[in-house]
Amino acid sequence: MPDLLRIGALVSGNGTNLQAIIDAIEKKELEAEITVVISNKKTAGALERTKKHGLNGIYLDPGNYENNREYEKEIVRLFGKNRVQWVVLAGYLKIITDELLSAYPDRILNIHPSLLPAFTGLHAQEQALKYGVKITGCTVHLVEAGLDSGPVIIQAAVPVLENDTVETLTERISKKEHQIYPQVLKWISTRRLKIDGRRVSILPSSSPSGNEIINPGGIV
Amino acid sequence: MPDLLRIGALVSGNGTNLQAIIDAIEKKELEAEITVVISNKKTAGALERTKKHGLNGIYLDPGNYENNREYEKEIVRLFGKNRVQWVVLAGYLKIITDELLSAYPDRILNIHPSLLPAFTGLHAQEQALKYGVKITGCTVHLVEAGLDSGPVIIQAAVPVLENDTVETLTERISKKEHQIYPQVLKWISTRRLKIDGRRVSILPSSSPSGNEIINPGGIV
Repeated sequence: MPDLLRIGALVSGNGTNLQAIIDAIEKKELEAEITVVISNKKTAGALERTKKHGLNGIYLDPGNYENNREYEKEIVRLFGKNRVQWVVLAGYLKIITDELLSAYPDRILNIHPSLLPAFTGLHAQEQALKYGVKITGCTVHLVEAGLDSGPVIIQAAVPVLENDTVETLTERISKKEHQIYPQVLKWISTRRLKIDGRRVSILPSSSPSGNEIINPGGIV
Repeated sequence: MPDLLRIGALVSGNGTNLQAIIDAIEKKELEAEITVVISNKKTAGALERTKKHGLNGIYLDPGNYENNREYEKEIVRLFGKNRVQWVVLAGYLKIITDELLSAYPDRILNIHPSLLPAFTGLHAQEQALKYGVKITGCTVHLVEAGLDSGPVIIQAAVPVLENDTVETLTERISKKEHQIYPQVLKWISTRRLKIDGRRVSILPSSSPSGNEIINPGGIV
């Protein structure tokens, strides 16, 4: 048996990024297993996906906990029980507290639909359209206490087109998200991610695949 | 005689972006003339370039003016005398005041070495390296009172590579700058730039050239 990377995911919504990771695992592009998916929303589409793919999906009702810290203590307990090594935030709409951060230091990933540090927080695509940028994109980063401010692992750029709406721009960015999030997990599973303060680098592959994405959308 | 776009430039430094515009004009890719170049630095390399290309270059000593507004009144006077229609900031390191802004509303261009709104102000490339982004770039925008905050006309993305220094990253961004700044002036000279609040759009060309850059570095 290979030593599979054990992933725990936190979700709140439809879970299309979770699906991209599930797909990469099922296609054997990513040697990992999602040992638990926890949702703070009962009706999250992401929970349907876990059921469909035979994964361990749990709805954890925040209403049963006194505050966010107590809630996260239970998350940490469930992650421990499922031997989670890395945490993936996949459309999780709650603020992360120190409970989770201290349990998984530099081991929590998030994906954000902008080229950070531009357009942090909610509705990044709408912010980008309102600002009038011509290029935006998405970012996978390590989670730290600040809002969307952790070390950047990978970014992908997409153009903003003349007649874009929030919907069309979101769809264009999502396609890139579904490429880069599994890519980062591949780097982690093959021990290629090197974190040195804010500088994250990717070590050379011992078995180059030829179609690896490092800087999608970035052209010299 | 065609009705040439009349450009006035403000410079402080080496003027490589000015050079890119001069080159585009000399190659007849851009139907425009630079009627005056004003430098606030006596030894600016940009002034050497104006001399070499037979352009009207002026060193205007800020020390002879009571304040920045008085200095700009003289700039506006010189621009008027040279019938300047659009103002190009090309490495001009002074803050623009309302004197110039009100004389040329929505007619002042700046280029900035980042994908705005990320990394405003000085040393944008160094800021990008310190943050640890994987994609950065450059932006041509209209100048308004805020710092690097005016409506975006075009952006170009470049990757940040593993061993980049401020110098190597600056050079990679500069190459894109030298493409996009003349490109914007071409749109202006052919009356294709449409400004609607913060939304800047490019009208279709009556004579498509086939090699136009609209979203360099942005890939769907």
